[in-house]
Amino acid sequence: MSDNSGNTADKKLSGAGLRGQSAGETKLCTVGKSGSGLTYCGYDVADLAENATFEEVAYLLFNGELPNSAQLAQYKVELKAMRDLPQALKEVLQRIPKSAHPMDVMRTGCSFLGNLEPEADFSQQNTAANRLLSAFPAIMCYWYRYSHEGIEIDCHSEEDSLAGHFLRLLKGETASAQHQRVMDVSLILYAEHEFNASTFTARVCASTLSDMFSCVTGAIGTLRGPLHGGANEAAMDMIEQFSSPSDAKIQMAGMLERKEKIMGFGHAVYRTSDPRNVIIKQWSEKLAKENGNTALYDISVACEEYMWDTKKLFCNADFFHASTYNYMGIPTKLFTPIFVCSRLTGWAAHVMEQRSNNRIIRPSADYIGSAPRVVTPINER
Amino acid sequence: MSDNSGNTADKKLSGAGLRGQSAGETKLCTVGKSGSGLTYCGYDVADLAENATFEEVAYLLFNGELPNSAQLAQYKVELKAMRDLPQALKEVLQRIPKSAHPMDVMRTGCSFLGNLEPEADFSQQNTAANRLLSAFPAIMCYWYRYSHEGIEIDCHSEEDSLAGHFLRLLKGETASAQHQRVMDVSLILYAEHEFNASTFTARVCASTLSDMFSCVTGAIGTLRGPLHGGANEAAMDMIEQFSSPSDAKIQMAGMLERKEKIMGFGHAVYRTSDPRNVIIKQWSEKLAKENGNTALYDISVACEEYMWDTKKLFCNADFFHASTYNYMGIPTKLFTPIFVCSRLTGWAAHVMEQRSNNRIIRPSADYIGSAPRVVTPINER
Repeated sequence: MSDNSGNTADKKLSGAGLRGQSAGETKLCTVGKSGSGLTYCGYDVADLAENATFEEVAYLLFNGELPNSAQLAQYKVELKAMRDLPQALKEVLQRIPKSAHPMDVMRTGCSFLGNLEPEADFSQQNTAANRLLSAFPAIMCYWYRYSHEGIEIDCHSEEDSLAGHFLRLLKGETASAQHQRVMDVSLILYAEHEFNASTFTARVCASTLSDMFSCVTGAIGTLRGPLHGGANEAAMDMIEQFSSPSDAKIQMAGMLERKEKIMGFGHAVYRTSDPRNVIIKQWSEKLAKENGNTALYDISVACEEYMWDTKKLFCNADFFHASTYNYMGIPTKLFTPIFVCSRLTGWAAHVMEQRSNNRIIRPSADYIGSAPRVVTPINER
Repeated sequence: MSDNSGNTADKKLSGAGLRGQSAGETKLCTVGKSGSGLTYCGYDVADLAENATFEEVAYLLFNGELPNSAQLAQYKVELKAMRDLPQALKEVLQRIPKSAHPMDVMRTGCSFLGNLEPEADFSQQNTAANRLLSAFPAIMCYWYRYSHEGIEIDCHSEEDSLAGHFLRLLKGETASAQHQRVMDVSLILYAEHEFNASTFTARVCASTLSDMFSCVTGAIGTLRGPLHGGANEAAMDMIEQFSSPSDAKIQMAGMLERKEKIMGFGHAVYRTSDPRNVIIKQWSEKLAKENGNTALYDISVACEEYMWDTKKLFCNADFFHASTYNYMGIPTKLFTPIFVCSRLTGWAAHVMEQRSNNRIIRPSADYIGSAPRVVTPINER
């Protein structure tokens, strides 16, 4: 679920994937710079996770500066008013089967909304971004609960934060203050990550001066790929199979021996650690203690120790997100859609930035195909 | 509607847009190589437009070789069986208002179909691509005729070709052999164009190992942008305002003086001519003579002459497509969706190629933002 292509992607093409090639400038983010692992608009992500809320981070990414109290209050009123879904969109979500990939649902919900409430021109870009920010929890939860539980939920809530709003739509009741805070931190941690593949998709799309909904729809489709999103789901699937910390180490040894992929470790950019891991790991521990059953956390710690001891691979943002979300009772298949609800802020901010100094992104290709040839009449082929 | 960023994009960032940087290898296409302006898998596009059909070109792009008679017959049977739309998709299209941007409709139709008929693994990639190829005319025409004419059309037809099928769904009757042939040629001309922005979007998406529907959905969103798709629509809007060849020259002089954009001329890659123009121009002339009223063609020729004489700018593929489509009675707002029906073949072929030797596409960015800073408590901001 982070951008950990490092231990998964095919490295045969050494010059491929534009690795290390600059595709533009950004004011939004640094990744892996020495001294500060991940910054949004100059702020360390750990500082933001400790001293800000997700709404403040969204405001920061869209406007370049953190809001003051009055600005934040007004922003939250604005977001709160846009939480509900149009009836036509609900009817579309009703037609998506339970078996669908939840990321296909998010992609389709975003795309369909663009028909009903198009971004008429770029003066509406903040409104379009905020609308998606407010509506994504409802798109996810309306489809999930309709298809899995047969319930048509009320998509509005009076919860103060988007984190609380999402948990309420999912559970049907107000979540604990602690769960709301953990979800808020999680949304901050996943909000932005420079020119990862989904964000780059959004910028390529934006570079033709296409609309916000197209850019975000494309980004969701890119995040859907197993080399990008989905690592925390895969981590959860793995952890669930381990019965104890010692069992985890035994089974992981077997996985490594069989050269199976182990998701949630290593990173394409970070070399020594993922700055988001220490933050989400602390919350996983707190939730484990609150829960009373700490098995999932203990197993996760055993995995972390084992991978470091044997492979010198560290946990990325995704690994302890798995146990954290699980302790909050979130279905595993919604892990990547939550990533969408968060990363939307980064995508939209990059779209705005691309538009502010645009040139169409149109690289070249090296031709390795057939030499010139002439069409043979079909009856002679 | 071609990829003519040449006379429209912002050139301030000289190194931006990855211009001239290779983002990978391809066997599918050359653009602007000396001696042969545009080739698909080694075949000159003029040769294909003269001696092949769109279905043969689709087969070529998906399989690397032109089909023989038996292969083509089987392929057309396969495509014909996949023309109709699922009822749920029709119900989604019914919920998209008449006022929607037709490209938003195509993007949403593609995305929604991915929920119903997902590409479970890459062994299904040809099936997924062929399904979209067969279904796109129905997605476009079902929505258009339902929202504009209140008619629920039958989405199946027994027309031999996709070109004929599309025209039948649009008009409700079999088109003339000449119109079917012109549409077929048009679909060939727009099928593939190397690493243009929409195709590159599809490849970035594919590089995370996402599914075919996500890749194509993202590509549609990128083609939607006015710097990429839509140039033939813009050309049509312009030509319609000219009352005669002499009026065209007078009005264009005014447009140039006011520094207004004139769409359908010049190209980011081609330097002396667009090899597709001479082909579609001939068909425009034939249709004009068939029609009896040659005004639109004559005006278009006057525009071509004027732009060459005054600015040394040549017509690209889009310019004479405007009059060509208009003579066939195609509503202007469907011009770019037709591009989707054609370019899908290139997009899908590039997705397959990306998958065959993949590395995640993840470039770097140059940071130009704020120096490290510390979060100020909100009540002190």
